[in-house]
Parts: sequence; C-alpha cells; structure tokens
Amino acid sequence: MEKLLLWFSPIVAMMALFFALKLYFWMMKKPEGNEKMKEIAEAVRVGAMAYLRQQYKIVIIFFAIAFVLFFVMSRMGLLNPIIPFAFLTGGFFSGLAGYLGMIVATRASSRTAEGCRQNLNEGLSISFRSGAIMGLIVTGFGLFDISLWFILLKYVGPMIGLEYSLTEITMTMLSFGMGASLQALFARVGGGIFTKAADVGADLVGKVEAGIPEDDPRNPATIADNVGDNVGDVAGMGADLYESYCGSILSAMALGAVANASSGQSFNAVLLPMLISGLGIVFSLIGIFMVHGKNSSSQKELLFAINKGVYFASIMILLSSAGLVYYLMPGNMGYWVSILVGLIVGIVVGKSTEYYTSGDFGPTQGISNSAKMGPATTIIDGFAVGSMSVWIPIMTISGGILMSYYMGGGAVNPTSGFYSIALSGVGMLSTLSIIFATDAYGPIADNAGGNAEMAGLDKEVRQRTDMLDSLGNTTAAIGKGYAVGSGFLTALALLVSYLEEAKMNLLHNNITMLGDFAVETITMGQMVDHFEINILNPNMLVGTFLGGMTVFIFAALTMKAVGKSANYMVEEVRRQFREIKGIMEGTAKPDYQACVKIATKGAQKEMILPAMIGFLTPAVVGTFVGIAGVMGYLLGIISTGLLMAIMMSNAGGAWDNAKKIIESGVHGGKKSEAHKAAVVGDTVGDPFKDTTGPSLNILIKLSAMSSIIFVGLALLKF
Amino acid sequence: MEKLLLWFSPIVAMMALFFALKLYFWMMKKPEGNEKMKEIAEAVRVGAMAYLRQQYKIVIIFFAIAFVLFFVMSRMGLLNPIIPFAFLTGGFFSGLAGYLGMIVATRASSRTAEGCRQNLNEGLSISFRSGAIMGLIVTGFGLFDISLWFILLKYVGPMIGLEYSLTEITMTMLSFGMGASLQALFARVGGGIFTKAADVGADLVGKVEAGIPEDDPRNPATIADNVGDNVGDVAGMGADLYESYCGSILSAMALGAVANASSGQSFNAVLLPMLISGLGIVFSLIGIFMVHGKNSSSQKELLFAINKGVYFASIMILLSSAGLVYYLMPGNMGYWVSILVGLIVGIVVGKSTEYYTSGDFGPTQGISNSAKMGPATTIIDGFAVGSMSVWIPIMTISGGILMSYYMGGGAVNPTSGFYSIALSGVGMLSTLSIIFATDAYGPIADNAGGNAEMAGLDKEVRQRTDMLDSLGNTTAAIGKGYAVGSGFLTALALLVSYLEEAKMNLLHNNITMLGDFAVETITMGQMVDHFEINILNPNMLVGTFLGGMTVFIFAALTMKAVGKSANYMVEEVRRQFREIKGIMEGTAKPDYQACVKIATKGAQKEMILPAMIGFLTPAVVGTFVGIAGVMGYLLGIISTGLLMAIMMSNAGGAWDNAKKIIESGVHGGKKSEAHKAAVVGDTVGDPFKDTTGPSLNILIKLSAMSSIIFVGLALLKF
Repeated sequence: MEKLLLWFSPIVAMMALFFALKLYFWMMKKPEGNEKMKEIAEAVRVGAMAYLRQQYKIVIIFFAIAFVLFFVMSRMGLLNPIIPFAFLTGGFFSGLAGYLGMIVATRASSRTAEGCRQNLNEGLSISFRSGAIMGLIVTGFGLFDISLWFILLKYVGPMIGLEYSLTEITMTMLSFGMGASLQALFARVGGGIFTKAADVGADLVGKVEAGIPEDDPRNPATIADNVGDNVGDVAGMGADLYESYCGSILSAMALGAVANASSGQSFNAVLLPMLISGLGIVFSLIGIFMVHGKNSSSQKELLFAINKGVYFASIMILLSSAGLVYYLMPGNMGYWVSILVGLIVGIVVGKSTEYYTSGDFGPTQGISNSAKMGPATTIIDGFAVGSMSVWIPIMTISGGILMSYYMGGGAVNPTSGFYSIALSGVGMLSTLSIIFATDAYGPIADNAGGNAEMAGLDKEVRQRTDMLDSLGNTTAAIGKGYAVGSGFLTALALLVSYLEEAKMNLLHNNITMLGDFAVETITMGQMVDHFEINILNPNMLVGTFLGGMTVFIFAALTMKAVGKSANYMVEEVRRQFREIKGIMEGTAKPDYQACVKIATKGAQKEMILPAMIGFLTPAVVGTFVGIAGVMGYLLGIISTGLLMAIMMSNAGGAWDNAKKIIESGVHGGKKSEAHKAAVVGDTVGDPFKDTTGPSLNILIKLSAMSSIIFVGLALLKF
Repeated sequence: MEKLLLWFSPIVAMMALFFALKLYFWMMKKPEGNEKMKEIAEAVRVGAMAYLRQQYKIVIIFFAIAFVLFFVMSRMGLLNPIIPFAFLTGGFFSGLAGYLGMIVATRASSRTAEGCRQNLNEGLSISFRSGAIMGLIVTGFGLFDISLWFILLKYVGPMIGLEYSLTEITMTMLSFGMGASLQALFARVGGGIFTKAADVGADLVGKVEAGIPEDDPRNPATIADNVGDNVGDVAGMGADLYESYCGSILSAMALGAVANASSGQSFNAVLLPMLISGLGIVFSLIGIFMVHGKNSSSQKELLFAINKGVYFASIMILLSSAGLVYYLMPGNMGYWVSILVGLIVGIVVGKSTEYYTSGDFGPTQGISNSAKMGPATTIIDGFAVGSMSVWIPIMTISGGILMSYYMGGGAVNPTSGFYSIALSGVGMLSTLSIIFATDAYGPIADNAGGNAEMAGLDKEVRQRTDMLDSLGNTTAAIGKGYAVGSGFLTALALLVSYLEEAKMNLLHNNITMLGDFAVETITMGQMVDHFEINILNPNMLVGTFLGGMTVFIFAALTMKAVGKSANYMVEEVRRQFREIKGIMEGTAKPDYQACVKIATKGAQKEMILPAMIGFLTPAVVGTFVGIAGVMGYLLGIISTGLLMAIMMSNAGGAWDNAKKIIESGVHGGKKSEAHKAAVVGDTVGDPFKDTTGPSLNILIKLSAMSSIIFVGLALLKF
C-alpha cells in the first residue's frame, strides 16, 4: 500500500503541470489589447528574456565549475557520486521554472490590462490565474523531481548495482536542494539588483530631474523598470519559492529517514512530506478554480473570493494530513500538531508583516507623520519600525519550534523533534500552488498598470490595475509569512542533517569509531558530545560570530551593488536625454533596450561576489574551526540572518506604504516636503525589501546546504 | 608576599585619585576667560547638573526597587546576602564617577577655550589633563572598590563570621559589576537621548529653519546642545568605561578562582587582574605627564606627543605583566600571550574603526560621493559601509578568542581558557587612565569651541578648538576599539561565570547531585552535558533567537526615543522663536534652561523601558527555557549585539565625517545639494553612533550580569 502511495506524488505533480498548461492556453486566448499595448508588452518581453539569457549564461558557468568541483570531490571519496548530478538537476529545474514563469508573466500583463478595460473581475481572473500557473509550475516541477529522484535511487538504482540505504538516498537528495538554492540566490540577488537599479534610474532622472510621470514612455528607463518587476518579482520570487518548497520537503525526508530508523517507520516518515505536498497540490487546484468574482465585485468581495480559495485549501490539508499521519505514523499524532502549528505560525507572521507594513495601521502611519519633519526622521523611524517588527515573528516562530519539537517526541528522540519541526515547514508550504497565485498576481497587475500607462489607456484602467496591485499587497503578506517561517524551520532541520551527513562521511571513509562511540550506531547526542558542539567550545562561539558577520557583509555587498548599478543607469538615462534629440517632445523614441542592457550588465557583475560568499564561506569556516565551528556558523547565520531579513523587508514595506499614504493626499500630498522625505524613505527601502531582505532568506538555506556538501573539509581536523 | 601584593592595588588606586585631585586643582587655577565665557560655562554647568540630578533621582528609585527585590531573593535563599549591597555600591561609585567627571568637564571647557586663545598647546594641555582627571577617577574608584570588597570579604568577613570560599567571594563581587552596568545603561541611554534630542532640535529649527549658524547664542537649544555633549560624551562615556573596566577585572577574578581551584594557584589567579590593573594605573600616570607639546607645535607633533604617552604605558604594561605572570602563575606564560593578544586586538579594532569612519579613507569618501545623488543613496551607502565594517573587528576578535583560549590551556581546562580570554580584556583596559584622556579631551575641546562661538571670540580660537576636536576623533578611535573589544571578551567570560553561579546556587540550596554528577566537584563540561547546553537543544536555539530579537527591540526603542524627544525639542524651540520677541535681533535672550528641561524630561521618560528590557528579560527567558535557554540568549545577544553596535557606531561616524568632507568645500561645499544630503546622513547617524550603538555594548554585559543574578529562576525547572 505504501509503495502504491509513492506514485501519488509524481502523478499529482504531473497533474499540476497539466493544469498549468491548460490555464496557460486559457490565458493566451484572451485578447492582448491594441497595437501599442502589444508593442510595449513585446519590448518588456524582449528585455526580460535578454536578461534571463545573460543571467543563465553566468549561472551555467558557475554551475559547471561547481559540478567539476563536486565531481572531483566525489572521486576523492569526499562526496556521494550521485551528488554532482542531483545538484545539477536542482539548478536546472529551478532555472526552468523561472524561465517559464517569465514567459507566463510577460504574456499576462498586457492581457490583464486589456481585461481591466472590460471590468475588474476579468483583470483579476487573468492575473490571478496567471499567478496560479506559476505556482503550479513551481510545485509541479518541485514535487515531480523529488519523487522521481526518490524512485530512481530507491528502485532503479539497485537494478544497476547502486544500492543505498534510505538515509543515504534522502541525504544525497539534499544536494538537489543545494542546486535550487544556489540558482535561487543568483535569481534573487541578480533580479533584485536589476529591478532596483532600473527603478532608481527611472525615478531619479525621469521623475525627479525631467519631471515626467511614472511609466511615461518618454523615459528611457521605463521599459527596464517594467522588465525589472518581472525579473525581480516574478523570476526571483519563483526561484525563491521553488527553493523553499523543495528545501522543506527534502529536509523533512532526510530527517524522517534518520529519526525513525530504529522504529521501522522510516519509509513512511520519508513518504509523509511527499504525500502532504501532493495533497496540497490537489486542494490548491480546487481552491484556484474557486476564485472568481462577479463583474460588479467590490475590492472587498474580491478579497473574500481569493481568501475563500486559500482557506479551503488550508482546512482540507489540515483534515487530510490528520488522516495521513494517523495511517502512516500511528501513535505519532504529535507530527500532525506540528503541521497545524506551522500553518498558525505562517498566518501569524504574515499578519504581523501586514500590521507593520500596511498603511492601515499605526507603525506605517507613524512613519508618514515623521516625514513631515524631513527625510532623516523618516529614515530613523522606518528603521525603528523594521527593528521592532521582529518581535512577533521571533516569538511565534520560537514558540512554534518548541511546540513542534516536543510534540514530535524530541524529548526522547531529538532527531524526531527536528523532523517534526521540518514537517511544520512542509505543512506551511503544501498549499504553495494557490499561495503563490495570491503573491504573484500583484506584480502582474503592476506590470499591466505600466502597460496601460505607456499605451495611454483610460485612467479607469490604471485605477483598476492599481486596485488589484494594492489588493495583491494585502494577500501577499501571508505568502511572505509562509516563506520566512518555512525557510527558517527548514534551516533548523538542515542543522541536524549536517550532523547526519558528517556521520555518513565518516562511514564512507571507513572510519568506524569516534572516540568511545561506534559510528554506525552513534546517536545525535553522542555526535554532539564527541564534537563538543556546545556553548563552551570557543570554535562554536567563533563560528556563531562569523555567521553573523557573513550576514552583515552580504547585506553590505548587495546594497552597494544596487547603488553602483543604479549609478550606471542614471548616467545612461541622462546621456539619452542629452544626446537623443526630441525625446521629451515625443518625436524620437528613447533606446529602451540600452537601459535594459546596462542594468543587466550591472546585475550580472555585482551578483557574483555575494553568491560566492554564501556558497564558499561554509567550506572555509569548516576547514579552520571544524564541525562545531560550522554548526555555530549556521546558528549565527540563521539567527542574525532571520532578524535582518525581517527588519529589512518590513522597514522597506513600511517606507513604501508611508509614501503611498502621503500620495493619497495626507500631510500635503504629492510634491509636498513630506512627500519628498517619504520618497527618500521609499528609495532606501527598495534594496532593503527587494534585494537584500529576500536574498538573506535564501542565503540562510544555501549556507546550510553548502555546509552539508563540504562537511568533508570540516572533518579533516579529526 | 602575595598578601603584601594585595595591598598594591588599593594603594595605587588611591594614588590615582590623589593625582586626579592634584590635576583638578591645577586645572581650576587656569583662567576661565571673560565674563561672557564664564556666563556661558555657568549656564552649561547648571543645565548639566540639573540633568544629572533628575537622572539620578530616577536611577535611585530603580536601584531601590532592585535592591528590595534582591534582598527578598537573598532571604529566600536564591542569592548570596552580600549581593544586594555589592550591587548598590557598584551603582553608587559609577554614579559618583559620572558626577565628578561632569564637574571636571563643565569646568574645563571655558578654560580650554581661554587656553586656546593663548596657543594650541595650552588648549591641549588643559583639555587632555582634564580628560586624564576623569580617567583617573574612573580607574581609581573602580580598582579601589574592587580591591576593598575583596579584602573585606576575604579577611574581614571571617572575623564577623562570614566565611566564603574564593569562588564565592569573586562570584558575589560580580554583582558589583551588575550595579555598574545598570547605572551605565541609564547613563548611556538617557545621555544619548538627551544629547541627540538637543542636537536635532538645535539643528532642525536653528540651522535649517532660522538659518543661524551652529552654537549661535540666539538659538534657544544651543545651551541644551552643549549640555548634551557633556551628559552624553562625558557622563555617559565615563559610566560606560567604568562599567567595562570593573566588568573585565571582576569577570577575570571570578574565572581565575574557578579555573585554578585544583592547582592551588587560585589566589594568585584572582590577584593577577588586580595587579595588572594597578600597574596600568602607574604607567598611565607617567604617560599622562609625558604628554606636552610646545607652543609652536603642529597638529602632527601634538598627535605624536599624545601617542608617545599611550605607547609608553602600553609597552610598560606588556613588559611588567610578563614578570607578573611569570612570578604569580609559573608555567602559564600563555596568559601573558593573551594580554599581548588583547592589546593587539584593541589596536586593530581601533584602526579599523578609523579606516571605516575617517574622512581620509575610501569608505567615508565614497559616502560623500554618494551624497551628490541625494539623501537616499547617502543613507544606503552609509548603511552598507557600517555593515561592511564589521568584518575586521569580528575576524580579529575571533582570532583573539581562539588564540587566548588555547594559549590559556583551554584545550585541557576550558575554564582556564576563558580566564585567559578575560585577561585579554583586562590587559586591554589596564591603561584606561590614559586611554580615557585621549578619548575625553575631544568632547571637552568641542564644548570649548561652543563656548568660544557663543562668546564671540576670535575665529582663530574656534579653529584651534576644532583642531583639537578633530585630533580627538583620531585618538579616540583606539579607545573605542578597546571599549568594544574588551566588552565583548568580558561578556564571553561572563558566559562561563553563569554556569559557575548555577553550580553555587545548587550547592547553596543543598542540592548535591545533578543526575550522575556530584555538584561539589562537577566540571564545566559536565554542567554543559547535564543541562544540555548544546546546539541540538531547542531551548538553546530559541534562546539564541530571543537574544538577537532583544537587540533589535532595544535598538528600535532607543531610536524611537530620540525621535520622540527631538520632537518635543523642535516644538519648544519653535515656540520660543514665535513667542519671545527679539531673539533673532539679539535684543532678547532665549530661555535656555527650558530647552534643557524638555530634553531632560524626554530622556528620563524614554530611558526606562529599554533599561527594564535589558535588566529583566534574562529573568523571563530563564523562567521559560531554563539554563540552556539563557546561555543561548546570551550568545544571541552577544553576537547580534556586537554586530549591530559596530555597524551603527561606524555608520554614524562615517556619515558624520562624510558631511565634514563636503563642508571642507568638496562636491559644492556647504549649502550645496550634496551637503543637504550629507546632513540627512549625519542626522540619521546621530542616534546610531551616540545613543543606540554604545548602549548596545552595555546591554550585552548587563544581560550577562542580570542572568547571573537571576540564575535561580532558570534552575526552577530542574
């Protein structure tokens, strides 16, 4: 029966891909608008694809080098020989998901604009379903690859003489997550730099210096700006969530195998996260088709329509996973409580994000108030709001960790406790297909708005896209909560997997004894004792400080990168205004693609160093301060990274919405001194919330994955 | 012989106080300048004393409550009965040092201004020696109190029936450091809020709105601004360094007793930090009297004169401590290496501070460049520079920790390794008397400049005070490096003391067995095992996250506090300009003291919550997640706190100097757009570098001290 259940996940995954294709054809049949709209959409599409091609060229080189490195390491016996290949496929599918997502998004925006010309509901349908396509692509590919690798290694491998234990299989599969993480970091950092460089360039020269409105076709950077929304919000987010989704499932599988090795339930424990994710796809699909409003729907009714779908999927996943846990892991209903805890944590973190960043609440209103006193107080206040905003997420996640751990039997079997924590993350992300849709339709509507503006459509169209965009900000908060929470829980699970990998590495190298312990049967607690992974070990302490330091260096580099790239952009836009006569009069067309190229080049150049740091630092740390040092390093990067990520994302969001409050007419409205101050806050917040903040979330997991791969170096000392 | 040596420290401490008095009389004999200068100095003095009185009123209430709490706890057997009293004296002497320092500083400024009317060297002599007075007061009181308590508990106690072991004595004395830390936090936070509120108020309304220059007597906030420099830079810094000085000695003494308990060298190990500190005072005194220039000295020659004194004291302390270690701890010369390491770490961290914040180097020049593009890029760049600046300090401190630990025999005896780390901190701060002088003459010169400006003295006088001020910024960098480095090392030493206190607490409550271990002879490693203080314990993980969270909340609260208080100030200044006719024409005098009162009130109100958080959170964390949770909490607060403190201090310093670069005429000079942007950066940097950053440094140690006091609550779970 369990073996039959195993086929459920790949089949559901293919179903997701099938429905993604179906929805894609549905979307493509929608009218694309007039010639002007098509032309603009085409320009954005060309720019976005040019960017992706350039980005992938560099990523391929990087992956090739890493592959060779891993291959050599595996030849030296430092790595399982499957790892280099699993690593490649993880990167490949992540890249593919980003590429397809981009194709969908760049085709959906003009259609959404055209839909909004008819009515709000048509606009919502097109943008929401396009978001759903991306969600289904991400979850479909993710679950398909995971289950396929599992079946290959478990059933096909033995046929060709590659027989591995369940633990070895699942630990090896983590390197699939490593590929996804590395590609996601490139996508987030590169996309983040591109989008903000283009944004700043368009705003500083176009809006401030030339005094033309946002998305004005006379602005040479305007196409780049819209391309940026796609490569940052769509491709970047796609790769990010793909990585989170796979990471949570893979880490749960790895721990499931280890935690239940002695109870004989290990196969079921590995199966459970795949099945929960499979069920999540099914219920999300139903939920997606539940979302539709009426032509006359108000914003509130639309919000309700969307929420209805999300709530349905969430409740169904809760009910059905209770059954699953009961059937697969009898006597361990605590695991189900973890899934419940995960959903609650995600929602609370999301709601707290909303509270601290939405213009409807005190903190952001306070920032708009501070703007009356000038830019400095705006910055100080926003920074304070962002810093304060960590408390609810940290308290909630901390409570969730303790709850999941102890409900999962951690007091008796620590690994089982961490498996339980990992399941929290899986539960949270199981409904990603629909959650992604609630996250992604906002950026699509934003792009549709750009299209409408540039094509000179009626004001009403722009109002409708703006309404969808702002609705998107509200529904996206929960998605963000899920991403942050699950990433954090996954990272914790990877901490333990690190020790397991160390053990496997020792066995692989025929080391059978560690001091007084036999490696074969060593428990996690004994590993901790042997490697002195405790707070009095100065190596661990130093590792923790180095982990925190890495977060700050990474933040500095990515912010600097935005500044540098924006500089190039500003110069290019100024050059075009100066050299191409007739731009301002509308008699000559600016060279849009030149701006796209500049931003692309800047992003590519600047993304390499931060990515290298995330990827290689664990190897260096391991070489110098050993196993305890690396675990300290991970603890430092997880705790400081999470705090900085929340602070930066929320400060950025709050500044953005404080500006919008003023633009709505409060404190003097647009062009007032307060507005100027709020614009400064918003500009500072841009790299905070769209480049550095979200990248940190990936850095945390990449570091953990990378530590696992390079564990051999940390063991050299012993 | 060792008992005779014991008397060395209190005698030297009294000598320090004697020379402080002597220098004070020397300074008081210097002419105070004309009537106008006296009047202004008097106004600043009155304001500063009014502030201190108000501050101490609140601190006394807080201490009274804490005393009662500790007294009750000691009655319940949760605390040693000496602790409440030791706690009080720590706070008392810290407050006294701040009070006396303020008396010195407010009397020195007009005399320095008058000195500068004669020549630069006279100005330097007065300001430097006044700084030295404060340094001698701090070290004199500190060492006197410590050695007195030690003699009391060790020799007088047994006479009246209070017999304690060496470990108990030194552990109890830590609560003396707790009193100093708590008072220091109040001084830093309160002073930091006051000075920045006054600064922002004076700048925003006076400079920007009314368009009058800095320190113009027509500005109602100008006296408050000068008072602020005293309460922030003088009283705040004094309390801060007093706390660091005592904390480093006390933590080394406590660990020395434990680490060498079995070798019979524990008495000598306790003596060593006191003796090093005593020698430090002697050599510093000689160094102080070595500092004098000629009337015709250039700035470079003056810098050399100051450095000569510092280098002399440092080299002598290195040489003599080698002899001391050789004599007291034969066979443990590794401890001496730690002292050397400490000095190197302090200097490297100081130099790195200089590199990242001085206008002579790339990072700050880069910020002034970014200012050309507006305030947003200025902020982003400064934030990036601050974040990047953590790398040298963290790498250096990490290397220093490992070096000290292993040289101190940590591989065999972990406690000895941590004792060695603590000695690094003691060595660093042993020359505090002269280091303090190099730190403090800058603010005195700054105040002298204010006095000169308000009294309408020759431009030349202001130029000379400015030169001293800027020279002070250079020499102060090393002092900052010492403060940050030693604070961090002390906090690490306190981590281990925490476990020792837990052990004593158990014994005190007649708990003799912990699982398989006898409490009496339990080692630190066994404590770690028993309480599972390792990375797989979710309580420890959660503690780490909570520690990091506390840093962010503390930062948010203190920054918000500056904003709020500045708001009151702005309104008051505006009110005076509006209601008191003739201010701008110079026919009516503004109400200076009203501004002082407003800033005082704001600071007092806003400092309470952050102080409470630092003081009480360890108790709450301990109650919920136990010993392992508290140790994780401390790890989180130490690592994240250190990173944030360095980032904020350096970003603030860099913004400040980037503004100064532009004011020197680059990028369009004063009143250019670039200058406006740089002013925004400077204003954001103010609370970063003068309120939150330095307060975090104290928060770290206060948390550790507070955890030690409340260890009984964390043990309730067991």
